[in-house]
Amino acid sequence: MNNMLEITSSSNPMIKMIKGLYRRKERRTRKLFLIEGIKMIGECLDNDYPMESIIYCDGLLDMRGGEELFERIRDDRRLFKVSNRIYEEISDMETPQGILGIARFESNSTTDIEIGDNPFILLLDRVQDPGNMGAIIRTSDAFGIDGIIVTNGCVDTYNPKVVRATMGSIFRVPIYGVQNEIELINMFKDEGMALYVTALEGSMDIREVNFIRSCMLVIGNESSGVSRGIMELADNRVKIPMSGGAESLNVAVASSIIMYEGMRQRVQ
Amino acid sequence: MNNMLEITSSSNPMIKMIKGLYRRKERRTRKLFLIEGIKMIGECLDNDYPMESIIYCDGLLDMRGGEELFERIRDDRRLFKVSNRIYEEISDMETPQGILGIARFESNSTTDIEIGDNPFILLLDRVQDPGNMGAIIRTSDAFGIDGIIVTNGCVDTYNPKVVRATMGSIFRVPIYGVQNEIELINMFKDEGMALYVTALEGSMDIREVNFIRSCMLVIGNESSGVSRGIMELADNRVKIPMSGGAESLNVAVASSIIMYEGMRQRVQ
Repeated sequence: MNNMLEITSSSNPMIKMIKGLYRRKERRTRKLFLIEGIKMIGECLDNDYPMESIIYCDGLLDMRGGEELFERIRDDRRLFKVSNRIYEEISDMETPQGILGIARFESNSTTDIEIGDNPFILLLDRVQDPGNMGAIIRTSDAFGIDGIIVTNGCVDTYNPKVVRATMGSIFRVPIYGVQNEIELINMFKDEGMALYVTALEGSMDIREVNFIRSCMLVIGNESSGVSRGIMELADNRVKIPMSGGAESLNVAVASSIIMYEGMRQRVQ
Repeated sequence: MNNMLEITSSSNPMIKMIKGLYRRKERRTRKLFLIEGIKMIGECLDNDYPMESIIYCDGLLDMRGGEELFERIRDDRRLFKVSNRIYEEISDMETPQGILGIARFESNSTTDIEIGDNPFILLLDRVQDPGNMGAIIRTSDAFGIDGIIVTNGCVDTYNPKVVRATMGSIFRVPIYGVQNEIELINMFKDEGMALYVTALEGSMDIREVNFIRSCMLVIGNESSGVSRGIMELADNRVKIPMSGGAESLNVAVASSIIMYEGMRQRVQ
């Protein structure tokens, strides 16, 4: 790759496009998003996830694991080199690792959802914090959740902070955007799926809830919880038993504990 | 309070001190930290946590819950008013709520730890992310963990981002700094406490681990896990059973699931 051209100008069209992909609207228009860092690029390749381009700078070779990754991609036709200075302009990391990819996402619609045998599905209702969203996707992957449905009010799942927090799980978990969640929930309920909604009051202890059957678990917004329209459709309002002083848990923590409880029941 | 003086100058000593308290060193020297927002000030008052001063601006009265809180503190001798402009200078919130407090922390040393009857203690080994640290403190509070020990390499528990993420649990959970964790662990083990260390490989499923006995659970750094010196002292290496693609969980999620499992065993 010694004859590879190095991009040194900020006005290069690809550099401009990358900067644009930090904006949600631009990601949605192009159906592209950014993945950054050695671990994420490796995970993307491991999962054969569609990637358009890989951009690196010499700094990559100084990072732990950088040389191994470079060996893996050095003959990849999608590879572009940029100067260290340009790389810093396009990086979103505190300590840039010198490698960034442009990946392509499928806009999964909920009409594509195939309800398999006894699924356990998550519905995220206006989850706002990128770190929470990313951690929820990561846990869903770890516990083999069948799919995640996100309402319009959620933070964009392809936001760079979300993507990073998934630690690669974004490449594995099926994620579906939904326009009309009420309609979708009614349809799923008609097919026999139970709707469990997290709520602090008047709720059933998650240890009493049946997660073995086909079910959808709804996780609500960080401050206002699950919206009323969804709450009214719940078969059960569910809560995590707590003995101490805090009246609620972080939303990623709460949803992860419920997924663990569900998995615990399913494996037994 | 109509005769209350309003601080309008950035060079006012209290304003300068507040800005200084965004730095760890300054917090440690003065044993003071900042708490911000309506919920946090309310929690601080509810818990009779030592607070030196409360600073507000008129903007507070426009916020939901702001007037109720103001009624509660209007005659408090610790109250100071600042102009909206000055408030924005000292605020750390994206949407400032117009109220901030200066709280005083006790430097709890591990020599103060009283091992009560059958305690369940957490030891955080170089946990770096403020959001993770805050969520762990919040979950510890929810599940009635008896205390949290933090090693020197951890993010400062009085960092404003940590404090905010605890949602008030910082005022309730006993937190102890430790200089020599190996010495402390050996001492606790001599007193009959079990040491459980989270590890991905060669570990015991948390459902098989005995959390009913007196025990200390060690949570490691986000990327490198638990340090070798502590690992070697473990009675058991413990792991969360996972069935899916992700090989690990977010550190706040993982520790919360284990606390839930421990609580689950203890309540049964």
